[in-house]
Formats: sequence, C-alpha cells, structure tokens
Amino acid sequence: MDKPGDTPQRVREAALRLFAARGFEATGIRDVARDAGVSTAALYHYMGSKQDLLLEIIRGGLHELTAGAVEALGDVDEPVDRLDRLVRAHVTYHGRKQMVALVSDNELRSLDAPSLKSVIKIRDRYEALWAETIAAGVSEGDFRIDDQKLFRLGLMQMCTGVAYWYQAAGELSLPAIAEKFAVLALAMAGSPRAFDADATTPGGASA
Amino acid sequence: MDKPGDTPQRVREAALRLFAARGFEATGIRDVARDAGVSTAALYHYMGSKQDLLLEIIRGGLHELTAGAVEALGDVDEPVDRLDRLVRAHVTYHGRKQMVALVSDNELRSLDAPSLKSVIKIRDRYEALWAETIAAGVSEGDFRIDDQKLFRLGLMQMCTGVAYWYQAAGELSLPAIAEKFAVLALAMAGSPRAFDADATTPGGASA
Repeated sequence: MDKPGDTPQRVREAALRLFAARGFEATGIRDVARDAGVSTAALYHYMGSKQDLLLEIIRGGLHELTAGAVEALGDVDEPVDRLDRLVRAHVTYHGRKQMVALVSDNELRSLDAPSLKSVIKIRDRYEALWAETIAAGVSEGDFRIDDQKLFRLGLMQMCTGVAYWYQAAGELSLPAIAEKFAVLALAMAGSPRAFDADATTPGGASA
Repeated sequence: MDKPGDTPQRVREAALRLFAARGFEATGIRDVARDAGVSTAALYHYMGSKQDLLLEIIRGGLHELTAGAVEALGDVDEPVDRLDRLVRAHVTYHGRKQMVALVSDNELRSLDAPSLKSVIKIRDRYEALWAETIAAGVSEGDFRIDDQKLFRLGLMQMCTGVAYWYQAAGELSLPAIAEKFAVLALAMAGSPRAFDADATTPGGASA
C-alpha cells in the first residue's frame, strides 16, 4: 500500500480532492496524508508542504493546458483556424480536468507571493497564444473585434466555464461541446465562417 | 459600537469578507463575530448559524441579480433589445458585487441540501429570463443559434467572469464593459445589430 513509486500520484490526487471539496485553508496536511494512505512524514518527504502541493496542482494544470494548445495549433497559420483550435483545446481541457480547473480558479488566493508570481508567468504565456491569434485575425481582416483584450477575456471565461457545468453523462459529448463553442467564438469574432455550416445563409446576405 | 440596528449588516459584511478570503469551511463563526465586532452570542441571536449567513449571502445576491434584470428588461419586447439589457445588467451586477459573486460560485459546495435546493430554484427563475429571450429571438428570426442551452451557458459564464477580472481602477468603466459585452453577445447570437455601429459593413455584404 505504501509503494514509494505511486505515492506522489496518490498524494496529489488526495490533495486535489480535498482542496476541491473543502478549500485549501480548511484542508490539513494530515487530512491529505490520511486520504492518500501515507504517513504525514512520508508526505512531507515526497511532496513538501501543502503550499507546494497547491502550486504543483495549479502549475501542472497550466502546463498541460498550454501543451494541449500548442499541440492543437501545430503549424496552422490561419487565425480563424487557430482560434478554432484554441477554443476546442481549452474547452476539452476544462471538461476533462474539472477539479484542477476549479481549484486553480478558487485557490489563487491561497498561493504565497512567489508561487503566485510563477503561476501568473505561465498563465501569461498561455494567454499570449490567444492574444497573438486574435491580433493576427484582426490585422488580416478575418475578425471584426472592437476591443481585443475584452474579447479575449470574455471568450476564455466562456470556455473555462465548461469546467463548472460539464457532465460526462450529459446530452452532449465533450468534442461536440468543443465544436459548438468554436462556432460561437468565430461568430463573436465576426467571422463569416461561423455561419458557413448553417442551413441559413451568412448574415448580411439577402436572406 | 454594538448598536443593534447595524449589527446584521456588519455581520453579513464580515462573513462575506472572510468567506471570500479563506473559504467557508476555514472560517469559524467566532472569526466572523470578531471581525464584525460583536459577541458570538449576539451573532447567533441576530443572524443564526454560519450556514444561515452563507445562504443569506448567496440568496440575497441572486435576488438582487434577478431584480436588476427584471428592472432592466422593463416592458421591452424585442429579443435583441432584451438580450442586450440582460447582458448589461448581468455584467454590471458582477462588476459591482464581485465578492458576493465569487463566494456564490465557490461555496455552492458548502450549502446543505435544502439550502442548495432553494438557491437552485431562484437561479432557475433567473436563467429562465435568458432562456425565454433566446428562444423568442430564434423563433422570430433575430438570432441564429444552433444550440440555445449551450449558447446561454457560454454567454452567461462570459458575463459572470467579469467578477473575476474587473478592476474599478482599470482602463474601462463598468458601463463601457457592459456595452461591449452586449455587442459581443449579439455577434455570438448572429444578430446583424452587433456590427451596425461599426465603421465596416456587416459580414456577408460585399465588403
């Protein structure tokens, strides 16, 4: 039961569960150790403090999110395609990793200053992928966006929100949700592509 | 300092601050009493339990949000105008009441079952305002929305997100943000109105 090999994984999962259910402040390091089935001493040895665990959860999540986006973008050039892929990757991640997403959102307040700084640095790099894509789409005339920063904040929040309501047993599969959100994003960006697949004709045509 | 008249208000504000900063589970009723400058006995007398305080914060917020939306809608009939007003009212509320919004989002998990049920009932009534507006817009041909429920979830989350990033000292005023979000919402709904105010012509026109 106490094989060193899978201890870090068990501890991380226990911490994530407890932080999600009760919050970071209300979770004791002893609760995590008990839930993971290890001694408190072993926990400290393998994983460090409660703060280290929280940082690892949030940082690990952001790294995975960024890696997923970079992979989804591949060498795609067109801003419309890039935005489509960013939205799908973001939605997919937030549907798959709901607990990590919720803890990351709720517990930024619990990170100490250096940890918060390192997390914001990773998040800024991720958000830059979106900002660059949006700027390129506007300058190439693909998007009609008045305020790029506001558009990005709104769109990312919309996609992040999937973590709050997605249910694996729900009506729509995660890829279906991701696809529909990509269409909504393109519509919001003023891209005619959003309505290409519709039975109806694109907005502004004679109708 | 302990005038009965403003005690409930002071206690509610203290509870809100502490729930927002540390989380509900990590906040003791004694912390709330100390922060509000009342005795624990007085707190129980005026306000009931910690659970009662949380319920009052979340329920009060939802009632205020709903009242604001109903007032903003007035007797406006056109779905495009109604969606515009719902978005502005929602954004405005979430910019003004950031702490209530964050605690309401994060601490639904901490409500007991009957409290959660009563909260969901109020929330359902609020969401129905959006659902009816969206359905009316689609059936009248004002909106081109493939999946109404998904559209509503995405849009509401986008607008709720203002509570997470809005800063009163930021570049844009809250009314300006609310207006820009209303335009984004109409674009996402496929309403040509979204681009009427632009210098550019609506998508699909000869360009």
